[in-house]
Amino acid sequence: MRENKYDDETFFEAYSHFPRSVEGLSAAGEWQALKALLPDFAGKRVLDIGCGFGWHCVYAAEQGARYVLGTDISEKMLAVAREKTDSPVVEYRRLAMEDIDFAPDSFELVFSSLAFHYSPDFGDICRRVAGCLAPGGDFVFSMEHPVFTAAGSQSWHHGPNGERLHWPVDNYFSEGPRQAVFLGEEVTKYHRTLTTTLGALLENGFALTKLVEPRPAEYLLDEVPGMRDELRRPMMLLVSAKKL
Amino acid sequence: MRENKYDDETFFEAYSHFPRSVEGLSAAGEWQALKALLPDFAGKRVLDIGCGFGWHCVYAAEQGARYVLGTDISEKMLAVAREKTDSPVVEYRRLAMEDIDFAPDSFELVFSSLAFHYSPDFGDICRRVAGCLAPGGDFVFSMEHPVFTAAGSQSWHHGPNGERLHWPVDNYFSEGPRQAVFLGEEVTKYHRTLTTTLGALLENGFALTKLVEPRPAEYLLDEVPGMRDELRRPMMLLVSAKKL
Repeated sequence: MRENKYDDETFFEAYSHFPRSVEGLSAAGEWQALKALLPDFAGKRVLDIGCGFGWHCVYAAEQGARYVLGTDISEKMLAVAREKTDSPVVEYRRLAMEDIDFAPDSFELVFSSLAFHYSPDFGDICRRVAGCLAPGGDFVFSMEHPVFTAAGSQSWHHGPNGERLHWPVDNYFSEGPRQAVFLGEEVTKYHRTLTTTLGALLENGFALTKLVEPRPAEYLLDEVPGMRDELRRPMMLLVSAKKL
Repeated sequence: MRENKYDDETFFEAYSHFPRSVEGLSAAGEWQALKALLPDFAGKRVLDIGCGFGWHCVYAAEQGARYVLGTDISEKMLAVAREKTDSPVVEYRRLAMEDIDFAPDSFELVFSSLAFHYSPDFGDICRRVAGCLAPGGDFVFSMEHPVFTAAGSQSWHHGPNGERLHWPVDNYFSEGPRQAVFLGEEVTKYHRTLTTTLGALLENGFALTKLVEPRPAEYLLDEVPGMRDELRRPMMLLVSAKKL
């Protein structure tokens, strides 16, 4: 069963009003850190797995990519993505990430933003990516941090007055599904240890080039309520790797 | 100031009765996982940083290392280490890890077990290790996991009846000293993000070859009281890297 929460009417409606859905990359807190991991796009063929509204696909095209294929399981997301661009180098295709299966040497960059924690088998994804990436090609992605996914509730541990006492970690070595609430809806995400995530990369012929746990920009800390709490626990992993 | 807690009488006495101090490697829960990261020792020159009682130095000699240098800041630890072996290839030298400074190409393996979380600057250590390791040489080490060190107390969050509710993570992005209690004594350890630890390696000319968060062996889970809780949060990082 491939999860397709984004075609759920209520969830899609909520996600469509999420700041990063409306305003795009600039409203995604991790974008500056993620952008720094991306290689030069000029002349490259790019695959964006779980492309959603296609913000990153449009960015890749703007940066000079030769061809950009955005894949997503959600038809609703892709419909919006198609409306957002008329770039002749951008193509969208409905495809679950578990079904990615392209010819060897099809892309110089495979990218994914916050999709892989919806898949139960990251090793399988790495095999599929390695199978279609050109040698020396880049694999750059973000996913939820294991500290964020381990306990499952994805919420702070609160004190008697509702204050955020700390972030709870539990069941770290019990990998598998977690029921979390995102935008008011129940979604299934998958928790994996760091051992598993990095092992899947290294065992599938990738060299790790960078790993970043993004943190809020300094100027946001006092501007946005609650933003200082983002310094208390990591929420995402940003990873860049190179196919050997 | 180099921390030298192990020359403190009370702490040294307590550490000397710690299972892994008395029984050696077999009493260290992570040893099997760490051993799996070690390369073949035959004919190699080995540096063990923070060697303590020298268990790993003796192991390296037994496995065929040509020369083993164990360094530690604690004279008391080294005195015991010297008593434990008369191997002609093993040498012990009093040296803080912050002062490691050997000629290029001095070792084919640099090893360290649970010492680096006592140092405030892992980047400096990586530079020093890269400076004395032969090209293609291995750097294998264990250190406390950032999930374990972040909040600082290094203890579970307990419920009203003393039950272990979960492991608290806090102040993750505030790197620096943490006062923890180990064997009944206050010790200063340093918390670092995963970003910093892996960044220091990659920026100093190492390729990551493996990262393992060790977990208890299956047969221990029901044998040792409290051992199942070790599946609830990661305590250590085991890392192997290769000098490019």
